[in-house]
Amino acid sequence: MSFGTVAILGPGLIGGSLALALAERSLARQIRIYGRRDATFPAIRERLPLAELTTNVLDAVRDADVVILCVPIETMAPLVKQFAGSLKPTALVTDVGSVKESVDNEIAPLLANKALWIGSHPMAGSEKSGFAAARPDLFVGARIILTPTGKTAPEARERAETFWQKVGASVFTAPPFEHDKMVAHISHLPHLAAAALVNATDENHFKAAGPGFRDTTRVASGSPDLWTEIAWDNREKIKSAIATLVTELEHIKISLEKGDKSGLQQALQKAHDQRSKFLRSHL
Amino acid sequence: MSFGTVAILGPGLIGGSLALALAERSLARQIRIYGRRDATFPAIRERLPLAELTTNVLDAVRDADVVILCVPIETMAPLVKQFAGSLKPTALVTDVGSVKESVDNEIAPLLANKALWIGSHPMAGSEKSGFAAARPDLFVGARIILTPTGKTAPEARERAETFWQKVGASVFTAPPFEHDKMVAHISHLPHLAAAALVNATDENHFKAAGPGFRDTTRVASGSPDLWTEIAWDNREKIKSAIATLVTELEHIKISLEKGDKSGLQQALQKAHDQRSKFLRSHL
Repeated sequence: MSFGTVAILGPGLIGGSLALALAERSLARQIRIYGRRDATFPAIRERLPLAELTTNVLDAVRDADVVILCVPIETMAPLVKQFAGSLKPTALVTDVGSVKESVDNEIAPLLANKALWIGSHPMAGSEKSGFAAARPDLFVGARIILTPTGKTAPEARERAETFWQKVGASVFTAPPFEHDKMVAHISHLPHLAAAALVNATDENHFKAAGPGFRDTTRVASGSPDLWTEIAWDNREKIKSAIATLVTELEHIKISLEKGDKSGLQQALQKAHDQRSKFLRSHL
Repeated sequence: MSFGTVAILGPGLIGGSLALALAERSLARQIRIYGRRDATFPAIRERLPLAELTTNVLDAVRDADVVILCVPIETMAPLVKQFAGSLKPTALVTDVGSVKESVDNEIAPLLANKALWIGSHPMAGSEKSGFAAARPDLFVGARIILTPTGKTAPEARERAETFWQKVGASVFTAPPFEHDKMVAHISHLPHLAAAALVNATDENHFKAAGPGFRDTTRVASGSPDLWTEIAWDNREKIKSAIATLVTELEHIKISLEKGDKSGLQQALQKAHDQRSKFLRSHL
């Protein structure tokens, strides 16, 4: 199976891993990689000797069958404006942004009648970033959320689904608004909570930390700039997610203040049981 | 090196692991284990054929050189009252409770002029419990916090330090109050935050969860009953730790509400940098 010519715009952790996965699995006739600067090209060439590398986005997308936007969200629309007129009408364009409603609102009109468009969000990543951290198995076992709308062509959805499945992921769909609410809770909130937990901790206490602190705060080591952009783009949904977490914390605090030991036990029991459901759903 | 006759009161995960470590490393002339009921004795005898097992605490502590309280915190003082008058004056008594100020306030007066006393908190454990989960290497690489006070004999501190080092742990000290504040932030708060995070999450969103949610909430799968006891015993310090976390979360939320992107970036940057310090301190 080949997806033809695949243009990956942005060779960071996700874009780089995607290129490596496509190469390792022989899923593309040609891989093209667009980077804003060529400083990273020698490192890319070493691991992907057959890929075409370019700093000209028009060269990257020309005659491409699949185009994947792997650049920061705020640079997606300006980039799409540059190349929308140069796409094959049968080209499938998707992205890997972690926020979908604003991306879809901006990108869908730019590509209407010019190519097939659907948003994608790979729930994969790492606290590391950049091509150096890329690996071909990043998507194996990962979940991808596709975000079709009423305007999405069924063909776009089917092709995107097959594309992500072939690099090892499992795919499900959600409308962009639902997606943003879901990831605000399940992805962005844990990041912000981990950061808040570190910031609430006196560094003189680190010496007493065990595996609980280490794991609970792991994602706070993610790129501050990357996560600022992500949280910023989804801030409306995140504000209410934070409020929900604060309510749960206050609930535990009030149990302690009121001497309500069974209230505390119930909160911990509920969390334990819910997390078991989560683990079962991810078997 | 031998610590003479060592009495372990309570053969659960910690007490059982300690007995196994002492036996494996030939650190005791005699190991005595006190259990409230003898139902667990056959399983203990199988792994510790030379240990003396008894349901009579006076038989366990008679002529003992070291006595370790490995029973639940709320049963420590009643137990010590039973045997305090039967100790050798040179006996070293310590415990493994995860809260220290209340334990020290209760136990120290009971043992004054009767034996040497110092509190210990092994930062070791598992989400499993009971003798079945015990293993001789539980303390290898673990950190032990000793909690001396102004009344602690230097000899108690030195002997306890050597004792824990010989089973593989590294030891540091903190006064009981400081210890409780420290673990409220570094151990208890991450547990409660993980539980609150799970409780703040709609189970319909679990399908979108990635490794960030999984790791940030891992400890929420710990025993609700065990963690209720731990949090309950340290509730004064935990209340203020929760308040600190809520303040940090509100700080992030306010940045989002006010459109203060640089405030958000600074919070994430600070957390990132602090966590790097934590990682370096645990190399």
